[in-house]
Amino acid sequence: MSIAPVIIGSALVAFVEPVATGSGIAEVKCYLNGVKMPRLVRIKTLFVKSVGVVTSVVGGLAGGKEGPMIHSGAVIASGISQGKSTTFSRDLKYFRYFRDDHEKRDFVLGGAAAGVSAAFGAPIGGLLFSLEEAASFWNQKLIWRTLIASTISAFTLNLVLSAYNGQYNFTYYGLFNLGKFEQITFEYFELPIFMLMGITGGLVGALWISINTKINNFRRRFIKLKIGKVMEAALVAALGVTVAAIMIYTINDCRATPVDPIKHSVKMFCEDNEYNAVAELWFQTPEKTVRSLLHDKPDSHRILTLAVFTSVYFLLSCITFGLSVSLGIFIPTVLVGAAWGRLVAMFLYSFFPEANFLNPGKYALIGAAAHMGGVLRMTISLTVILIEATGVDTTFTFPLILTIIIAKWIGDYFNHGIYDTQIKKNHVPLLHWDPPKNHQRKCASEIMNSPVICFKMRENAGYIYEKLKESKHNGFPIVQDVVGDKRGHGRICGMILRSQLIVMFMNKYFEENRKYWENEVTIHKFRDMYPRYPSIETVKFNPDKANWTINFDLFMNPSITTCNELDSVSKIFGIFRALGIRHMVVVDKKNRVKGIITRKDFLNKSI
Amino acid sequence: MSIAPVIIGSALVAFVEPVATGSGIAEVKCYLNGVKMPRLVRIKTLFVKSVGVVTSVVGGLAGGKEGPMIHSGAVIASGISQGKSTTFSRDLKYFRYFRDDHEKRDFVLGGAAAGVSAAFGAPIGGLLFSLEEAASFWNQKLIWRTLIASTISAFTLNLVLSAYNGQYNFTYYGLFNLGKFEQITFEYFELPIFMLMGITGGLVGALWISINTKINNFRRRFIKLKIGKVMEAALVAALGVTVAAIMIYTINDCRATPVDPIKHSVKMFCEDNEYNAVAELWFQTPEKTVRSLLHDKPDSHRILTLAVFTSVYFLLSCITFGLSVSLGIFIPTVLVGAAWGRLVAMFLYSFFPEANFLNPGKYALIGAAAHMGGVLRMTISLTVILIEATGVDTTFTFPLILTIIIAKWIGDYFNHGIYDTQIKKNHVPLLHWDPPKNHQRKCASEIMNSPVICFKMRENAGYIYEKLKESKHNGFPIVQDVVGDKRGHGRICGMILRSQLIVMFMNKYFEENRKYWENEVTIHKFRDMYPRYPSIETVKFNPDKANWTINFDLFMNPSITTCNELDSVSKIFGIFRALGIRHMVVVDKKNRVKGIITRKDFLNKSI
Repeated sequence: MSIAPVIIGSALVAFVEPVATGSGIAEVKCYLNGVKMPRLVRIKTLFVKSVGVVTSVVGGLAGGKEGPMIHSGAVIASGISQGKSTTFSRDLKYFRYFRDDHEKRDFVLGGAAAGVSAAFGAPIGGLLFSLEEAASFWNQKLIWRTLIASTISAFTLNLVLSAYNGQYNFTYYGLFNLGKFEQITFEYFELPIFMLMGITGGLVGALWISINTKINNFRRRFIKLKIGKVMEAALVAALGVTVAAIMIYTINDCRATPVDPIKHSVKMFCEDNEYNAVAELWFQTPEKTVRSLLHDKPDSHRILTLAVFTSVYFLLSCITFGLSVSLGIFIPTVLVGAAWGRLVAMFLYSFFPEANFLNPGKYALIGAAAHMGGVLRMTISLTVILIEATGVDTTFTFPLILTIIIAKWIGDYFNHGIYDTQIKKNHVPLLHWDPPKNHQRKCASEIMNSPVICFKMRENAGYIYEKLKESKHNGFPIVQDVVGDKRGHGRICGMILRSQLIVMFMNKYFEENRKYWENEVTIHKFRDMYPRYPSIETVKFNPDKANWTINFDLFMNPSITTCNELDSVSKIFGIFRALGIRHMVVVDKKNRVKGIITRKDFLNKSI
Repeated sequence: MSIAPVIIGSALVAFVEPVATGSGIAEVKCYLNGVKMPRLVRIKTLFVKSVGVVTSVVGGLAGGKEGPMIHSGAVIASGISQGKSTTFSRDLKYFRYFRDDHEKRDFVLGGAAAGVSAAFGAPIGGLLFSLEEAASFWNQKLIWRTLIASTISAFTLNLVLSAYNGQYNFTYYGLFNLGKFEQITFEYFELPIFMLMGITGGLVGALWISINTKINNFRRRFIKLKIGKVMEAALVAALGVTVAAIMIYTINDCRATPVDPIKHSVKMFCEDNEYNAVAELWFQTPEKTVRSLLHDKPDSHRILTLAVFTSVYFLLSCITFGLSVSLGIFIPTVLVGAAWGRLVAMFLYSFFPEANFLNPGKYALIGAAAHMGGVLRMTISLTVILIEATGVDTTFTFPLILTIIIAKWIGDYFNHGIYDTQIKKNHVPLLHWDPPKNHQRKCASEIMNSPVICFKMRENAGYIYEKLKESKHNGFPIVQDVVGDKRGHGRICGMILRSQLIVMFMNKYFEENRKYWENEVTIHKFRDMYPRYPSIETVKFNPDKANWTINFDLFMNPSITTCNELDSVSKIFGIFRALGIRHMVVVDKKNRVKGIITRKDFLNKSI
């Protein structure tokens, strides 16, 4: 029963749309950073992701549905903004204005925020998630548009869930409802304990990432066949169920059935009026287990049971993340953290039975914060999401932030957060907040590429066609005052994109037949095809016209951003981030082209 | 008794440090935007501000102490970062690294956030306040450093206040404690009412700003003498007290003394076991009045009393903001909003006595949100501050955000928010998030200044000295390949600042005496004097040396940011904001100087 749905979901991901693997958060982050992520925001991806996440959760894999929710939000927002779909070959043409990388990115940002907001019932957390993890280019307008999106998203979910449950008091905020803490206080002497837990969180989190990276490296090397990936997912599903069954069978932990807060407790192997505490942990959804760990009465678990469960789930989640299935990492992280946090309280309590501040729920929350800080390393949004999802007092903000920050510090000493590790493994040219350390003291001429393929203002069509085929570059400088054939050292006067050249070849915008197209060229000719332009190989070009001319005067972008050879990489990096550009031409003091810098050149090639 | 302290505070502000007037938030905002605000972050200013705010609050003026708290936070942070004080002539030299506009700005940002955090007990609100209102240049590191600052600030305040009150459960978060809402829910049919209240908030807020602006224009024109300003403050203090006394005397509103939540109720003119509801409103601190309005039982006020009080306080706060005293605008705004919000509920209740959802506290909160949205126009940080300060449920976030956003929209239709209005009146070259509308379609050559004062790479010292005296510019391009005497059209190769030139003249860094200084020039020579460089008039320059040479090779900044004549203003604006620069040189295609753009050129000159 567990294997069947996992196979369906895994096959969908492996055969139909591999980009729907995992949580999608790292990919959305790259997309928002300005990197092209093919097929990430397509309707097909949304479909595979949705079905995939349902089957994985039904199959009982150790993962959550919150990450995929965020990715789905991004896809939906991107679809709305474009008003067209390649999968369904429809084009509504209402939103032509938004067919532009920058505009679309703003929508995706709002969609991601709305996804977080719906997943955790945390509208402000959603906004901050977008700002912290995702947004590279933002301004005040974008902030509050995003806030509106995430607020309405949380409210709509609340409305729908409230109506579904037949209640009209709006209490169903968030899919992942951590349950409200009524009154939560702390004593000053607990702060060192919290700090130690933060350190533990950082260490354990770094360990988790390191093991997970090793497993994924193994996967990358040895499991290359699609069918192999599906088999592996089935195997992990079987493993999870087997381990759970063994635990339930061997650990005998029967307890008197409580009235609250667990509604349907699992009797399995126990007497009437009793429930099986181990089975309880395994048979609930992970979300409910987290809730139990945070809110159950102090004596609901045995140390041994919980310790075994924590270790097993830690390893299971480690194996699961990286399988060819759609699953997030958030829930397993919270779960493991809450479990060991609760263990800390139970352990301390066994030594100091009179210490009544040792509320296990509180320690479970701190443990969850520490573990998430260690694995995810998202300081601010995590804090706010936890605060919003548990409704803790402002007073308790301090211990939470303290724990998360310490966990992040400790973790950062060993490796990058899980999302950044993923991104690095995939060699995505993501621009972080600062340039890599070994680049900070370099200047432009040390990282630039040269020679550069340039075109003259009036250029031979055949030459352009050849160069487009030869190279894979996306941006070409337009130059003047070329000495002889040395286009690569001409004086810069503009820039043209590969996509624009392709449209020009398709529509035959040559100087010689100018009278035929001069009156019908509009920006829409270039935008309608966005974002999928055909490759140059599929564009027909009559060799007879190889001597015809293309005049860039009408088409090129004359307002280009250049830098000079001595500019520091830090400064150039700042401009790349601020303007969200993809290439910058390096010029000498006379404005002659020296080289070109692209996003990839900021990557730390040594790693 | 009211006039005496007001006179002391007002005299301090008027005679000792006029920059300490008002709340200081607008000024801090400008500072963080990259504008030079003389004397804003000095210890003297902090002293005047602190004494000023205490005297004004004691004098009973209609203002709050929260704005000045934020300004004080900024001053303290700036002082810490510099490790020296001009007022006390001390220089610790520990923090030389931070003697740089960018570094200092980051500290001030953290200080402002810490101020908000302490004032409202809202650490995340503080962070967002800094991001929304203040930060022009930020990155992830800065975000979480700021978060640490604001968290620790809130915690320290909590610790100190808890210890002061002899309790160790950390419940004294924030000076401006709005009191926790235990359970606050809403019905879907209340949303239209909230929206109407948002519209009202926008209208009333715009009206408030408009009246306040008129009053301040009047002040600017007719009250120019310092002694006049002090007299005016005394007059307004007298007016406030008189109106309050008349109200207390004429409106007879005696009520049975309740047990909770008001501890010391005012008996004045009433029987034993009764309290005077009007005197109650006036004799508490404004903070306590807000708390009463939010949490008092439904029948604590009469409609007439509250209506008169609201109108009077509205006008009083309008007159007060702009006086020569240190006072914030936050509290009066919350107070007026909460008062009219409560009035709405009471009014509706008189028509629908069976509508038990009409909790006046809830409506007071919505009214406060609406009025603040209308006056302050800070969408996100306001929302979060309100949520953190009242501890409302996540569910109630939606109505709050809805109300604030609508109020902001409506208000923006009529005028700018109060802080932006202030900034505009003072002609501060603040860079907003977008360039002014009438500039958006212009290009660089349309807004640039020319001719530009340039220096040659090896320049005559006398010429430089003359030009420094003649002009008030702060940045000078260094050029090469000058044809004849046309320095203004040379090829750009670097940039030098006025402050650097002044240091060079003071230390006599000329080419002719190079051997004497060559080995002792360090960056500290230039930084030690930061931020107060003497004016060029006070620097002695022997006319005999007018023919000596300055060689900029060693001193100039070769990594300058230029743009070309056709670049759009929007793009240039983006670079200004992203890099936080103050001047950009416009060059032609051959890198020859054409003009220079400074922050002032982005201002809308038509207004």
